[in-house]
Amino acid sequence: MTPIEQAARTTVHTWQTAVGRLGQLLSSLSDEDLQKEVAPGRNRAYYLVGHLAAIHDRLFPLLGLGERLHPELDEPFVTQPDRAHADEIAAADLRQLFAEVHAKLNAAIEALPAADWLLEHTAVSDEDFAKDPLRNRLAVLQSRANHAMFHAGQIRLVWPAEQ
Amino acid sequence: MTPIEQAARTTVHTWQTAVGRLGQLLSSLSDEDLQKEVAPGRNRAYYLVGHLAAIHDRLFPLLGLGERLHPELDEPFVTQPDRAHADEIAAADLRQLFAEVHAKLNAAIEALPAADWLLEHTAVSDEDFAKDPLRNRLAVLQSRANHAMFHAGQIRLVWPAEQ
Repeated sequence: MTPIEQAARTTVHTWQTAVGRLGQLLSSLSDEDLQKEVAPGRNRAYYLVGHLAAIHDRLFPLLGLGERLHPELDEPFVTQPDRAHADEIAAADLRQLFAEVHAKLNAAIEALPAADWLLEHTAVSDEDFAKDPLRNRLAVLQSRANHAMFHAGQIRLVWPAEQ
Repeated sequence: MTPIEQAARTTVHTWQTAVGRLGQLLSSLSDEDLQKEVAPGRNRAYYLVGHLAAIHDRLFPLLGLGERLHPELDEPFVTQPDRAHADEIAAADLRQLFAEVHAKLNAAIEALPAADWLLEHTAVSDEDFAKDPLRNRLAVLQSRANHAMFHAGQIRLVWPAEQ
């Protein structure tokens, strides 16, 4: 394993650990649990799961991995706040979408050659990337893992406190 | 910048962004806010701030950066759950501890040569590291950034919902 392969695989592993933890949280929650707010007056777990599916679906084009799968998630889960409209996606469908996005994303991420992780992501210009080489794909994946865990910490609060 | 420097600096930057966000959250909370639970019956923000200071203080020995600064944080903020005993550290002192740990940690992290990030961390044996080279220092820093954001998402709930 070359140093850059080691660095890239480390970041992919950290990402997959974060996604795995989210998946475990989601599996542990019933459809009724998903309707609960993470704290009084805050987002429901349902919304946060949809939000993470939408943001992670955007990683396909952002990392140069292809077209995204479910652009229809943006309106209810990114553009609009929670409870702006009646839910249009049933909990079972949301679970399936979440699993599909992450399975295909993980396959594409694992297939990316290590050196490509240091290339610019697709939302930065060549000129800006030349000035700041930290705006690379590795940075995007690390930032999204952090964002996922930010909301995982909130979703975790839907569990009973004594667990 | 060599590829491995680019990868190491990217991870350090992601870590510092996470720590910066935590610092902003902490600055935005009054001492009274710190006493609030992140959700009914859950940890107080005060406890989570102490918990993160303790866990990040442990990074000094874990990353081979030297002795930790405040081992006394472990008992109230890692070993014991929240509210096991009366608070022994005043909010102002906790803020100072938190700032000190992160300032010194960031200085040590920035001084670490890029190639050293791919070395084993100090809690893994040479033999285990040979089998799994992903158990390196880069992995530790990424994992701690994820953990920090997990609790940052919870601390964020102490803010008013409408902000």
